[in-house]
Amino acid sequence: MADNAQGPDRPVERVMPDHAIARGDIGAAARLMSDLDDEVPAARAQLRQLFPLTGRAHVIGVTGAPGSGKSTLVDQLVGAFRQRGDTVGVVAIDPSSPFGGGAILGDRLRMQRHSVDEGVFVRSLASRGYLGGLSRSTGDIIDVMDVMGKTVIIVETVGVGQDEIDIMRFADTVLVVQVPGLGDDVQAIKAGLLEIASIFVVNKSDLDGADQVVRDLESMLSTKTLRPGIATPGIVKVQATRGRGIAELVEAVDRHRSDSHGSDGMQTRHRRLEHRFYECLREALFAEACRRFKGSAAAERILAELRDRRIDPSSAATAAIEQIVGWAS
Amino acid sequence: MADNAQGPDRPVERVMPDHAIARGDIGAAARLMSDLDDEVPAARAQLRQLFPLTGRAHVIGVTGAPGSGKSTLVDQLVGAFRQRGDTVGVVAIDPSSPFGGGAILGDRLRMQRHSVDEGVFVRSLASRGYLGGLSRSTGDIIDVMDVMGKTVIIVETVGVGQDEIDIMRFADTVLVVQVPGLGDDVQAIKAGLLEIASIFVVNKSDLDGADQVVRDLESMLSTKTLRPGIATPGIVKVQATRGRGIAELVEAVDRHRSDSHGSDGMQTRHRRLEHRFYECLREALFAEACRRFKGSAAAERILAELRDRRIDPSSAATAAIEQIVGWAS
Repeated sequence: MADNAQGPDRPVERVMPDHAIARGDIGAAARLMSDLDDEVPAARAQLRQLFPLTGRAHVIGVTGAPGSGKSTLVDQLVGAFRQRGDTVGVVAIDPSSPFGGGAILGDRLRMQRHSVDEGVFVRSLASRGYLGGLSRSTGDIIDVMDVMGKTVIIVETVGVGQDEIDIMRFADTVLVVQVPGLGDDVQAIKAGLLEIASIFVVNKSDLDGADQVVRDLESMLSTKTLRPGIATPGIVKVQATRGRGIAELVEAVDRHRSDSHGSDGMQTRHRRLEHRFYECLREALFAEACRRFKGSAAAERILAELRDRRIDPSSAATAAIEQIVGWAS
Repeated sequence: MADNAQGPDRPVERVMPDHAIARGDIGAAARLMSDLDDEVPAARAQLRQLFPLTGRAHVIGVTGAPGSGKSTLVDQLVGAFRQRGDTVGVVAIDPSSPFGGGAILGDRLRMQRHSVDEGVFVRSLASRGYLGGLSRSTGDIIDVMDVMGKTVIIVETVGVGQDEIDIMRFADTVLVVQVPGLGDDVQAIKAGLLEIASIFVVNKSDLDGADQVVRDLESMLSTKTLRPGIATPGIVKVQATRGRGIAELVEAVDRHRSDSHGSDGMQTRHRRLEHRFYECLREALFAEACRRFKGSAAAERILAELRDRRIDPSSAATAAIEQIVGWAS
């Protein structure tokens, strides 16, 4: 809740909260994450207090089709960042479906070589719904890792559907992993990914066709008119299973990071924060409106007319809004 | 807007609107669709009047990965339905990206063999956003075709991301097209599609591996506990390029249609209609709230605190809602 005394005239001076999580208490961080997952109200209040401590980590999103080797790549990146002294958080989104998760979770086991490293914190989250979409708590978990002082946070998506779009709402740098052999049919998808990629990572660079993937990407990038102020995505070839190209990839990430640290980068961060705010606004407003609408006499009447097709969904919504908040249109 | 005089006590007696589109004026239908696309307010009002004439067509959604042969399959289905006297509407969702659309649009040209058939009406729509998602006007276009008296309406998705989920909001029967050769990596995706498929169509049944795809699907279906009241999806092998298996597929569609015509089917239709209503409610409420919020003094203050990370997005939303509608929480 905004305190009205903290208006724009108040000097911008932050009293940073002192908290066990910020002092390195890993157990407290893990508990807070679990409580946020379980939607414990006190956890939300705690995160609210900690929010001023966020916004310092560099968040890297990793997306790409299932089987493109994202988990192995993330494992290698963790190693490379650790070697130069970064502390790393990893948010791994797993498919929420009970099927097929096995292999993907199997890959995740590789991450265990970092499990004895106190500088690495890994947290898995189930994807939202059938076909992907980042978990609603993704932003919260990133925030907690940020408070923990992780300098780099890597978010690995399932690489299916909505979560590929969602990742750009959280990540400072988005790596889109491509592999040879998926055929021309994915061109349309690749074109869409142009909009979200900071860097294209061509993995399995030892396979036939890797150079063709690079050429295809270069050709798309040369013809594509990107939005003004957006740098052309770089392309880096790697062979994640052998650690080849990882150093070059880290360099490219650093370059993107420093490129985006000017006022453009700050604007992007602000825009992302506002986007999160408007998402919260939409969902909270809708939830509260439904709570007030459902079971009311007006709801009974409007829904009955809708079922009889005497009123269309859009007009029914207009009528409901008038009932709920008194806004006529 | 709901007329309050039309309360639940009013006898359920519909005065069906008389309209050129319902009388077969194809030009009027095409104009209305264009106007809906262009968001002409009068078009929305017209559709509102026509809404009581909707709900009669059987809507078939066709989804599956790019390259799985959806367009060829739809072309064959149109032919089969026409042969037995159905009139058919086709809504083809095209990727909105300028890249890669060529090949897909090329496939669509096959549909031209139906272009001289007055019993077939084809309408293309651009997908929403980068990575799919049905166009916002998909429901409207289906409604207009329904008013035109089309007995079958086929909606062909891009088969990427969100639009695969969206289709279940509109279709009575969802065909999920699978092809051999996409590898085990898509198992997780397939598992997700179990939730939305009425019928799995294994296309390119002449290729090696088609029987394996069928066995994989059968194995998944046998282990999967489906929600109560939901029939186990059928599996039909076809070779769309040669028209093989199409008769069997039409039979399976008919079976699914009659299975879903009981009270369960009516409940599903009502639930879909209510879902469309709640989607409209969410979006209209949010749009109006933003209109009232943006540029206000409260907005300036709340967004400034957010950018400084003095307030988190969720608390900022709570504060904004209190300002906009006076709901405190």
